[in-house]
Amino acid sequence: MGFHADIIDFGKGQPSLSLLPVAAWRTATGDCLARGDAGLLQYGADEGDVGFRDSLAQFLSRRYAMPVTATELVVSAGASQALDLVCTRFTRPGDTIFVEEPTYFLALDIFRDHGLRVVGIPIDEDGIRVDALQDALVHHRPALLYTIPSFQNPSGTTMSAARREQLMAVSRTHDLLIVADEVYQLLEFDTAPPSPLATYAHSARVLSLGSFSKICAPGLRLGWMQGAPGVLHTLTQSGVVQSGGGLNPFVSGAMCRMIDLGLADTVLDALRGVYAERSAVLCRAMRELLPAVTFVEPTGGYFVWAQLPAAQSAAELLPMAKAGGVAFHPGARFSRGDGFAQQMRLSFAYYDVPELEEGVRRLAQVLAG
Amino acid sequence: MGFHADIIDFGKGQPSLSLLPVAAWRTATGDCLARGDAGLLQYGADEGDVGFRDSLAQFLSRRYAMPVTATELVVSAGASQALDLVCTRFTRPGDTIFVEEPTYFLALDIFRDHGLRVVGIPIDEDGIRVDALQDALVHHRPALLYTIPSFQNPSGTTMSAARREQLMAVSRTHDLLIVADEVYQLLEFDTAPPSPLATYAHSARVLSLGSFSKICAPGLRLGWMQGAPGVLHTLTQSGVVQSGGGLNPFVSGAMCRMIDLGLADTVLDALRGVYAERSAVLCRAMRELLPAVTFVEPTGGYFVWAQLPAAQSAAELLPMAKAGGVAFHPGARFSRGDGFAQQMRLSFAYYDVPELEEGVRRLAQVLAG
Repeated sequence: MGFHADIIDFGKGQPSLSLLPVAAWRTATGDCLARGDAGLLQYGADEGDVGFRDSLAQFLSRRYAMPVTATELVVSAGASQALDLVCTRFTRPGDTIFVEEPTYFLALDIFRDHGLRVVGIPIDEDGIRVDALQDALVHHRPALLYTIPSFQNPSGTTMSAARREQLMAVSRTHDLLIVADEVYQLLEFDTAPPSPLATYAHSARVLSLGSFSKICAPGLRLGWMQGAPGVLHTLTQSGVVQSGGGLNPFVSGAMCRMIDLGLADTVLDALRGVYAERSAVLCRAMRELLPAVTFVEPTGGYFVWAQLPAAQSAAELLPMAKAGGVAFHPGARFSRGDGFAQQMRLSFAYYDVPELEEGVRRLAQVLAG
Repeated sequence: MGFHADIIDFGKGQPSLSLLPVAAWRTATGDCLARGDAGLLQYGADEGDVGFRDSLAQFLSRRYAMPVTATELVVSAGASQALDLVCTRFTRPGDTIFVEEPTYFLALDIFRDHGLRVVGIPIDEDGIRVDALQDALVHHRPALLYTIPSFQNPSGTTMSAARREQLMAVSRTHDLLIVADEVYQLLEFDTAPPSPLATYAHSARVLSLGSFSKICAPGLRLGWMQGAPGVLHTLTQSGVVQSGGGLNPFVSGAMCRMIDLGLADTVLDALRGVYAERSAVLCRAMRELLPAVTFVEPTGGYFVWAQLPAAQSAAELLPMAKAGGVAFHPGARFSRGDGFAQQMRLSFAYYDVPELEEGVRRLAQVLAG
């Protein structure tokens, strides 16, 4: 196999440039600034601009199909910033926290920065295993549990409605803070997943992290935190918010126009259509060309979580794959232990149909040895 | 004295709405998005967009009158976010850090969030007292020293060139990380302060925090960190940057156009002129109407640090002042101990000339009791 200057990297968990809504964002920023509201260039309110939070509440009420009010929402600079802030305000180094096994590998870097001990709780096809969680609670008193309930990163799994209820019951019993990373919640292809954990913000100790990165554009660095007043108050009373003011006031103002003009809905629906097609193309190519590789076809989100045949190691395969012009994230990166050696995470968000097919062809050549 | 619905609050350390450059920002964002560069809506490079960092380097080379290159710069979401990130990556709870006494009170909230023990080092009219710093280093091994070298918040003091050299010598001797909050550095009225501590980024362990909040608009949440490669690497390898990407890519792209079109210089020079006038008006009114109140007239920045006559407590005066329609920040807020009871911080950034004069008249009435 020759050298490929242009590797097709299924590891890239980001949208392709062509999907980024430059024209819509231009309309929204122009419309926003034409109003001449200098307040958007001022230090913002701790919880974020109330006009934006009202529009966001309407957007979420519509998309989540449940009532959301501005008082439940605090603006963030994206889910990563929000998670970092949660760690600063709700944990101390040496604390134990729970994550799903497997989980989003870069969240682990945030937890590392805060000196946290991370314990993995296994998941199955219905999401986090609540029986295993209860066992773990016998031995640990975690500061929080970090979960990605819908179209999980990396597994693509969606927590069932029953499992969500069970998790909430455990949260209530143990006063366990559940930090729900719900950035893929709105990215279903056809059928919506169960209601977000944000639904339970008033009946259990849940903080839901949302973001416009996956449903609009990552470069805006705009997201939100949804929860009960007490939890939100702890976050807005942080030094970084008290000193710097609310997060991203100008971008919030422009996103307010994106929502009010209907552009946020249009962009999101277009993305869902594209990702549904890309997922279908990737999965069809894999079934045809990689019959020994097994996976559950995703119903939303960004990822296919695939298992290599008989004891083949994804980490060992990767250098050969790269030489063959294709890459992916080996499953071990998403594990707290030495799990998922046979798994690989393939994202279909970054590439167009021909590249997805070519990537699978290259992978098939590599596997054929 | 009657009830004043509209208190003149000299505590507000922010620009007035009329100073915020809505038209210039509209031009810059429009120009930026007309180019159709979707990359600005993507997850950004860890250190920030290279085009923006190049333009910022040129802007700083010009305004600091010293050579600055893009390789020394990492984009931040403002000085507060940068300071929070510094704490996450360079400290652990229980660590001691040094601050100036007095210092910026909201920075103390950030340090509190990170569980830090804060020791104050006194300042005099030439800035931090290096003799006191050396004494303190006999007893403590601080993780960092936080300083505001130019037009200090709250005292308005500017560290002399000689004191800067001495501080750098101490930094080298003790391998002490100096975190320089230089957000007021470019806000001189007439005569530039000594070169920023950023100058020493390659010869001592210095990280300089800059921001567009005070020189353009707070609502952009855009700043920069300037330092040696090793220090910057520690910051960009943080979980929050690795997960969320570089800070504020879209706003960086628009600010790049602000700089390249010359608008950033125009805005900054206009602000300097306005603040120079406002400071002069406030000081003249204070000399006329509050002859018993002493202060050093500022030469830049945002603040007048004034001393009340004979053992009068600013904290005790404040409720009466509010009843009289005027407010300020009592000096004790800026102290780690029980210092500065007689001091008050008055900002001239938020109000126009007539309000500044009216505020001083109200204060004079209150003091006349």
